[in-house]
Amino acid sequence: MADRFGPLPSPGARPFIVEVRRGAQVESRHAVTAAIVDADGRLVAGWGDPAMTIFPRSSNKAFQALPLIETGAADAAGLSQAELAMACASHGGELRHTETVGAWLGRLGLDPGVLECGAHWPYHEETARDLARAQAQPSTLHNNCSGKHAGMVTVARHMGEDLRGYVDPAHPVQRRVTAALEDVCGVSIPADAQATDGCSMPTLALPLDKLAYGFARFVTGQGLAPERAKAARRLAAAVLAEPFFVAGSGRFCTAVMQAGGGRFIAKTGAEGVYTAASAELGLGIALKVMDGTARAAQTALGGLLEHLGLLDAASQAQLRPLVEPVLTNWRGLRVGDIGLAPAY
Amino acid sequence: MADRFGPLPSPGARPFIVEVRRGAQVESRHAVTAAIVDADGRLVAGWGDPAMTIFPRSSNKAFQALPLIETGAADAAGLSQAELAMACASHGGELRHTETVGAWLGRLGLDPGVLECGAHWPYHEETARDLARAQAQPSTLHNNCSGKHAGMVTVARHMGEDLRGYVDPAHPVQRRVTAALEDVCGVSIPADAQATDGCSMPTLALPLDKLAYGFARFVTGQGLAPERAKAARRLAAAVLAEPFFVAGSGRFCTAVMQAGGGRFIAKTGAEGVYTAASAELGLGIALKVMDGTARAAQTALGGLLEHLGLLDAASQAQLRPLVEPVLTNWRGLRVGDIGLAPAY
Repeated sequence: MADRFGPLPSPGARPFIVEVRRGAQVESRHAVTAAIVDADGRLVAGWGDPAMTIFPRSSNKAFQALPLIETGAADAAGLSQAELAMACASHGGELRHTETVGAWLGRLGLDPGVLECGAHWPYHEETARDLARAQAQPSTLHNNCSGKHAGMVTVARHMGEDLRGYVDPAHPVQRRVTAALEDVCGVSIPADAQATDGCSMPTLALPLDKLAYGFARFVTGQGLAPERAKAARRLAAAVLAEPFFVAGSGRFCTAVMQAGGGRFIAKTGAEGVYTAASAELGLGIALKVMDGTARAAQTALGGLLEHLGLLDAASQAQLRPLVEPVLTNWRGLRVGDIGLAPAY
Repeated sequence: MADRFGPLPSPGARPFIVEVRRGAQVESRHAVTAAIVDADGRLVAGWGDPAMTIFPRSSNKAFQALPLIETGAADAAGLSQAELAMACASHGGELRHTETVGAWLGRLGLDPGVLECGAHWPYHEETARDLARAQAQPSTLHNNCSGKHAGMVTVARHMGEDLRGYVDPAHPVQRRVTAALEDVCGVSIPADAQATDGCSMPTLALPLDKLAYGFARFVTGQGLAPERAKAARRLAAAVLAEPFFVAGSGRFCTAVMQAGGGRFIAKTGAEGVYTAASAELGLGIALKVMDGTARAAQTALGGLLEHLGLLDAASQAQLRPLVEPVLTNWRGLRVGDIGLAPAY
């Protein structure tokens, strides 16, 4: 296939490199470890150290949403596709995002104060400025994880559990999430691999290739209990039906799924993580930019998706401004670009 | 000496590492190349590849300001210490910054439209929000480089040169800047090493150790023509007298110089660059985080300054929140920290 974003180097023990170029020079370099794994757990391709332990951060929100379906809470609350997508989202805090989560909580008779994610200014810069222009402050609804938290609260309420402390690792809501993650990825996560995420929920470290394996199983259902496979299929369908609600305007998760036309799901995680999965190929992808930089993660994912033949020429053209961005300065002049380094 | 931020590994061919830790795990790693050089050009200590070619970006603004003094433009315009510091600054766009540059241009009968740096929202987040709350838009004064550009315009006006196009490499203003940089650093910069900076001025790639050498000469005057040595001394004194105007509230350049009590100057550059220099030790420091990440550059600089004995226990305590920051989440809970990796 034409490696129009690439070419990636052959899989091997060395990470591949994303370069930031200015003028005729390479200015900065990001090393990327990546794993492409099938639903039998076979490493189809790897770069760097695919077995390295990483924090998936938000990249595994779809796994964390499984109990929302499996407990029957989603159906009891009559959740829409957009709301299910938001349970798997790291959103920009745009009006359609916050209104969707606000209305969902409203139907349950709850207000945003029930969410234990904390508040932050919207990632979507123009929305943040609009909020300031309106002399307002951000609420928990603007937190990029508010949809995930709304999902957790929905489960707790449905199960008759305490709504307070649902972010605590010992709360039944989190125990279900951990069990689902361990099952899907085929791992048992030790106590010292547990840390706290930006939104106060646990984040559980696991090997990168196991994360990819989990995604291969998530989209194929292979090896999962029937109810779990069905729940996974439903979440994947929601994410693909409503990609705007997974991230938002100008965001790579949304753009790459729109360009992919349903062939794969994709999700970013903080500190340079990206995951993706294709039911058609039966493969999961997980990557980690070793230095944690988001700009390199989306370039790396673009390269891997193309490597797998999941982006046709039209999709590549559509994604080029995000995968191989031209860098402009404050006056809009071209000063450099970002892209995969030539194979070495 | 006690390596309280350290310990740095022994100098050698391997970069040193800044770690981002979450819970009990290392989540991300930044490799740092660094050079400590004396005013004779001797490499006193190096990590990684000290001769690697890098873009200094804003880290060499003090060199770029030399013609402002040497042409007599600064005296003719009656520039204050704060204004000279701003000519060497990457500022946060706080009110005191923008008012200072605005008043300086006003004395010359010029308005902010003369600056060719472009506009961007202030780096200082609360100031940016205040601007939005006031239903206003950022101007060129808010550009972090507006002080440097005001200096360039001041030179052009004093020399009777065209005020338009002063950012062009062929303009006499830029020719003087390039000549000063080449002289101070003892380099001749080839055409293909020239690129465009964020503020539209040229940025000239040079070896990291030559950048450190330039700073050793800048603060000692050793090997420089007497007038140049005098101009450098004056700029260093201004920066040390008015560190707020070099960066601003919560910014590392300002904080580290305040903590240093006049023992060294320090300046950040985009894409993970930091420079510093001590007249007392006769040394210049230059470092580059290979992946371009700012959070690691300030941790790395803290480690190098301590390695040289330039930070006493009180200074270290004062700087710890910036050099070894505790990472908190949106609810203020401690989730991890950043620091130098144990020596390897």
